[in-house]
Amino acid sequence: MSSQAEKAELFRSLHRGGRILVLPNAWDVPSARVFEDSGFKAVATSSAGMMVSLGYQDGEAIPRREFMQGVKRIAGALGVPLSADVVAGFGGGPAGVERTVKEVVKAGAVGINIEDFVHLTKTLMPLEEQVRKLKSLVKLRDSSKVRFVINARTDAFRFGKGGEEERLEEAIRRGKAYRDLGADCVYPMGLVDSASISEFVRALGFPVNVMVRKGLPPVRELEGLGVARVSFGPSASYAAMGLLRRASEEVMKEGTYSLLTEGAVSFDELNSLAVPKKP
Amino acid sequence: MSSQAEKAELFRSLHRGGRILVLPNAWDVPSARVFEDSGFKAVATSSAGMMVSLGYQDGEAIPRREFMQGVKRIAGALGVPLSADVVAGFGGGPAGVERTVKEVVKAGAVGINIEDFVHLTKTLMPLEEQVRKLKSLVKLRDSSKVRFVINARTDAFRFGKGGEEERLEEAIRRGKAYRDLGADCVYPMGLVDSASISEFVRALGFPVNVMVRKGLPPVRELEGLGVARVSFGPSASYAAMGLLRRASEEVMKEGTYSLLTEGAVSFDELNSLAVPKKP
Repeated sequence: MSSQAEKAELFRSLHRGGRILVLPNAWDVPSARVFEDSGFKAVATSSAGMMVSLGYQDGEAIPRREFMQGVKRIAGALGVPLSADVVAGFGGGPAGVERTVKEVVKAGAVGINIEDFVHLTKTLMPLEEQVRKLKSLVKLRDSSKVRFVINARTDAFRFGKGGEEERLEEAIRRGKAYRDLGADCVYPMGLVDSASISEFVRALGFPVNVMVRKGLPPVRELEGLGVARVSFGPSASYAAMGLLRRASEEVMKEGTYSLLTEGAVSFDELNSLAVPKKP
Repeated sequence: MSSQAEKAELFRSLHRGGRILVLPNAWDVPSARVFEDSGFKAVATSSAGMMVSLGYQDGEAIPRREFMQGVKRIAGALGVPLSADVVAGFGGGPAGVERTVKEVVKAGAVGINIEDFVHLTKTLMPLEEQVRKLKSLVKLRDSSKVRFVINARTDAFRFGKGGEEERLEEAIRRGKAYRDLGADCVYPMGLVDSASISEFVRALGFPVNVMVRKGLPPVRELEGLGVARVSFGPSASYAAMGLLRRASEEVMKEGTYSLLTEGAVSFDELNSLAVPKKP
């Protein structure tokens, strides 16, 4: 078991090894552990997945304490590095965001996602505001023992002004700003097709994260485009809830249990996912 | 929205309406809400599902407070009745078990499962010990405003002495004792085939609960055998973890995302599962 500082460096190196990092996002302890058992080299939290699992809508509705407990539970069960999605930082200004990131690192995370829009209103924050936050986080990282990985997300392509081209330009402008401030990776939300992903990656010449969604090119093609990291986002939660919905329909309509019992793990397997993997 | 006392009576009546009650077991808020949305008339917690989700193995390893918070989160998000699995009662003797049940009812549950074996050692508790617990719970129920439904589980068929026939006899003996003490339903663990289920149901002439597992007869057949309630147990958790494992394998080996994206719910659908259903 390596130290948390070593885990942070290991996680950072996975963004820079020339191979794409496939990063699955979990919502709770067993979903994280099943990813670790499957051989992924790191795991992340999904903000929507984790928050909804605890009874809060995505964003900053969850009390800070419950959020930190959720991160701590997952980090404590994993041997591989964990990155935590802290949405917009739960804090308003730079000081609040710094406090949040200190707490998630204390909870065991070695990386964070920080985004530049307001969940409730679905509006972009002014670039200057996000720049202040990131500056303070970069400073915190560089003076910390655990040099957590900063994945700077921009939602400019979703919530920016104008047509698709204009919004992609704004996403690139913001991505460059975050890169130049010292982020470790830039995460443009909403890019799906090869052309726009490629344009973004080439414009930045820097580690870029894309998210799994229907239509995203396969992993090898993304690697060919120079993408450094592909994360699941909330897709594992979407898929699990979709399965429960279909299994419910089967039980209600047919009275059978095949979706509940086929391809399922056993009791002992589930139970083993509650605690750290045996070495 | 009916009162908690009304919900308890509604839940009780679902065991006695002549139709089988299909009761899905959830592990967290959205898994419970997806079952409610699918039209099930009540929802239960799965002890293994919920505890593992929170980073504890099945049994009584989870701190009482975290367990109650888990029940409260789920109950607070549901309109339909919720039954909570309290394993062996987290308390040793009758007083401890009573305290546990008071707390789960305070957390919003209107029914409980109580079992007669020790998780850690997989041994049956002496019948007299379980009788003392159930007596005290029946007394508590009958003097409470919320007349919670008591589902008395026996693991005699799994952990009793002797061959299959002898163990089924012990399960029936215990089931009759629990029935005569005033339980609302009896839950023999481990019965799968029609013959043994039918023998158990006929011997008791009383509401009986069976659990979904591979090979269990379909719902209509169970109804024909006189089964009052069929619950999912941890099978939804088993199925969800099985799906994540297969989806991981697909991403790792093929580099594609079909198991993560096909048949999945959307972001808005997932997000809506964090909070009570709109009336």
